Amino acid sequence: MKKTTIEEQKKVELNNPILIEGFPGLGMVGSIATKYLIKELKAEKVGTMYSPHFPYHVIVNKKGGVRLLRAEFYALKNESGKNDFIFLTGDSQAQTIEGQFEVANTILDFAEEKNVKTIITIGGYRNEFERKPKIVAVSTTPELFEQAKKAEALPSEAGTPIVGTAGLLLGLAKFRNVDALCLLGETKGYLPDPKTAKGIIEVLQKMLEITVDLKGLDKDIEKSKQILGRMQDIEKRRAKYMQNIKKVEEEKITYIS
Amino acid sequence: MKKTTIEEQKKVELNNPILIEGFPGLGMVGSIATKYLIKELKAEKVGTMYSPHFPYHVIVNKKGGVRLLRAEFYALKNESGKNDFIFLTGDSQAQTIEGQFEVANTILDFAEEKNVKTIITIGGYRNEFERKPKIVAVSTTPELFEQAKKAEALPSEAGTPIVGTAGLLLGLAKFRNVDALCLLGETKGYLPDPKTAKGIIEVLQKMLEITVDLKGLDKDIEKSKQILGRMQDIEKRRAKYMQNIKKVEEEKITYIS
Amino acid sequence: MKKTTIEEQKKVELNNPILIEGFPGLGMVGSIATKYLIKELKAEKVGTMYSPHFPYHVIVNKKGGVRLLRAEFYALKNESGKNDFIFLTGDSQAQTIEGQFEVANTILDFAEEKNVKTIITIGGYRNEFERKPKIVAVSTTPELFEQAKKAEALPSEAGTPIVGTAGLLLGLAKFRNVDALCLLGETKGYLPDPKTAKGIIEVLQKMLEITVDLKGLDKDIEKSKQILGRMQDIEKRRAKYMQNIKKVEEEKITYIS
Amino acid sequence: MKKTTIEEQKKVELNNPILIEGFPGLGMVGSIATKYLIKELKAEKVGTMYSPHFPYHVIVNKKGGVRLLRAEFYALKNESGKNDFIFLTGDSQAQTIEGQFEVANTILDFAEEKNVKTIITIGGYRNEFERKPKIVAVSTTPELFEQAKKAEALPSEAGTPIVGTAGLLLGLAKFRNVDALCLLGETKGYLPDPKTAKGIIEVLQKMLEITVDLKGLDKDIEKSKQILGRMQDIEKRRAKYMQNIKKVEEEKITYIS
Repeated sequence: MKKTTIEEQKKVELNNPILIEGFPGLGMVGSIATKYLIKELKAEKVGTMYSPHFPYHVIVNKKGGVRLLRAEFYALKNESGKNDFIFLTGDSQAQTIEGQFEVANTILDFAEEKNVKTIITIGGYRNEFERKPKIVAVSTTPELFEQAKKAEALPSEAGTPIVGTAGLLLGLAKFRNVDALCLLGETKGYLPDPKTAKGIIEVLQKMLEITVDLKGLDKDIEKSKQILGRMQDIEKRRAKYMQNIKKVEEEKITYIS
Repeated sequence: MKKTTIEEQKKVELNNPILIEGFPGLGMVGSIATKYLIKELKAEKVGTMYSPHFPYHVIVNKKGGVRLLRAEFYALKNESGKNDFIFLTGDSQAQTIEGQFEVANTILDFAEEKNVKTIITIGGYRNEFERKPKIVAVSTTPELFEQAKKAEALPSEAGTPIVGTAGLLLGLAKFRNVDALCLLGETKGYLPDPKTAKGIIEVLQKMLEITVDLKGLDKDIEKSKQILGRMQDIEKRRAKYMQNIKKVEEEKITYIS
Repeated sequence: MKKTTIEEQKKVELNNPILIEGFPGLGMVGSIATKYLIKELKAEKVGTMYSPHFPYHVIVNKKGGVRLLRAEFYALKNESGKNDFIFLTGDSQAQTIEGQFEVANTILDFAEEKNVKTIITIGGYRNEFERKPKIVAVSTTPELFEQAKKAEALPSEAGTPIVGTAGLLLGLAKFRNVDALCLLGETKGYLPDPKTAKGIIEVLQKMLEITVDLKGLDKDIEKSKQILGRMQDIEKRRAKYMQNIKKVEEEKITYIS
Repeated sequence: MKKTTIEEQKKVELNNPILIEGFPGLGMVGSIATKYLIKELKAEKVGTMYSPHFPYHVIVNKKGGVRLLRAEFYALKNESGKNDFIFLTGDSQAQTIEGQFEVANTILDFAEEKNVKTIITIGGYRNEFERKPKIVAVSTTPELFEQAKKAEALPSEAGTPIVGTAGLLLGLAKFRNVDALCLLGETKGYLPDPKTAKGIIEVLQKMLEITVDLKGLDKDIEKSKQILGRMQDIEKRRAKYMQNIKKVEEEKITYIS
């Protein structure tokens, strides 16, 4: 394997498929949302992507097996709607600039071959906030952008950079016969964030003809809330301690200056 | 897109065109000056350069759109003078050594195709100073260098390195049928520096047959002065605080040693 | 030399050879174990691998000679057993992602050419522990994994990443006509660790039809124990010193807050 | 220029030429010695090497000119001896692993074309010492090594790594029809070190049939001694200051613990 390659395990006839991509990134929003959709909607594995630009380690499986880092394509026939789906998620993003471009181009080649006309990428953007996470949208076409806004996504601020595959797929889509939308969920970013992933799926449900049971995510949200609470306690105590030290120093200085 | 490519949006007949390049760098001097010239002189967009060596993110536009990082070529017919102009500015420089050489060579290929015989690159060089920023010149030919000195640019110190596209274009020009000049403006470098950009444009006005209204830059200069003032206040207070701490330590030590 | 190449010094007819790989890594477990096997079993040098992805320095030999960094293949005819052996060890791993993949693929090409059907890679995994080091196994096939468990290797935790050549060889093996097993020894990792290397060889002895005299390793283990003891003394004194400083600070703070 | 290239400015007939290489490195020993030889022996510039693996900046000349980073070949007819010489020095080493290998291979191609049978590379190795700097030698052949020892070079310790072009040329020479010797001078390494460069030239004089006036280097040695003296004064005062602070801290702690 000298370059990024996709191994197709199964050929499925898909009807106007939409590709939904979620790779690991800030708050793992993209991969949590996409993996949840794959599981809940029972999408079927159809392909695997390997790349010499993924990190050079392998991962141990449950039964003592081992595998290269990879990305996986899953297909979903959606008889009730007008679009079928391809989901794409993976272990890691490419590790170099050139690798990022190669991986994004390989995905677009595959999408074109499968007659995909619409791509939706999912990611997170960092913010400190306490309310419900915002979901913002950017798109290569006004039509897709309007659909996302109708589904309660907000416009993104101009100038925001979108790093990695979620962004490059949109940037490179304009050279291809494909439209693309990126949904970015607000996240603190330092912990896996199922709450923001849920926000993304809520937008997707309104946009696309899919129904997803979100109870599984609610359990994960509860767990991550507890972890976060404990971390914040520790942080508060540390901050108090640092403040006391600073007070000591300042009193000394006031005395002298 | 596997290598740096230029997409030509419009074919314009240009008469002895001079290429003026200003990419982001120290104090953003090159890009501020070039973008101001494009806007004030109403140059017309003619081409876009993309590169897999630019950073792998995309940028969000005002209307929820999105685009790859890029550089742009603008053309200006200058009926009153003997040279037309091509301006080149961009979002970013290439991120690797090999990418820097590829981007510079692609620009030179384009310049040769357009029959460019003279290139002027713009950049900043770092210095701490309070007076009017100096503009220094280096060139591949004595003739261009003399023209720049007549326009009140100063000679640069021998040995100065000129990093990035502004420098490489000159270094590589000698292998091509093209002359090149680099104007470097003195800048503190840590903030966008419209004052130094103005100094560059003043030299260009004297050298070339162009007239530019500089009032728009004066507003930006005023704004950046205020920001700098505030930052310096903060820095002074911090320095005083550190000095007090040091005094405390030294008194203790004097006592013991 | 523009890419990774193997120079074959000697052609040996090998019977169902097993390739055993141990490159430098955590605790030098892989290279210590493999070099010890080569020496004790008197394996014969048959090939040298060079790569422009190894670090760009050369190493001075005993007699004022000098050589590129390299990896070496050694062959062992094992008349009493059903498998012969090829051992592979080297000075260094490849230094870039792309280099890691190229080196691993070159090794696999060589293995296929020599009709190798089984590869065993050796490495370390970091842990703080005081007991006998654990040896864990992962494999591309259940059969090899079971053999390792019978030889008292433990199953590895799912999700563990295996970095570098020891891991990539397994990941890439599935695209080839070859099975692979990785044995990882628990190590503190910051010093060459002959004790863990010995644990690996004990597993190999049980798995394969080889007998190795381990006395040479015992001497090295004794030496490394003394070095470690001295380092731990220094560390303890440093920790006590830091704790005292902290106590001073905390008393001050308790007083004020 | 997409890869390392040599531009030949002048064709000279050379008789059994020896190539002497000195690139910038520790203490600038290689480039100081080689440049001094070029100047004193009045060698003639015959070629220039450019590489996209050199750093991506250009250097300003005295007259406002500018040039790419480069390496230069100089030739010397040595009528009185049995070997002519080619000297090679440059502004910089290649900046990436792959670039280092490409540059070294390009030099070897050029050497073979010029019928060079012997290469001598020059560098520094770091050490803290007060006496006369040692010069050590390593070589691809016992004959060259013996010649260097007769010229009072010492054998190098086994295991020493020789980083960069000075080392790679030897490592790669064995794949070519050329012998190579590396002379490394002991240097503190953090300042240009003409004293060690002189030591290298003294060895070269004994080995080769050349006579070099060393007075020019003596002036530089005197200057660098004064700079070093001043730096050591500053360092001593700083060390005393740090010790006093430590004493203060320790007294506090002794009191509490």
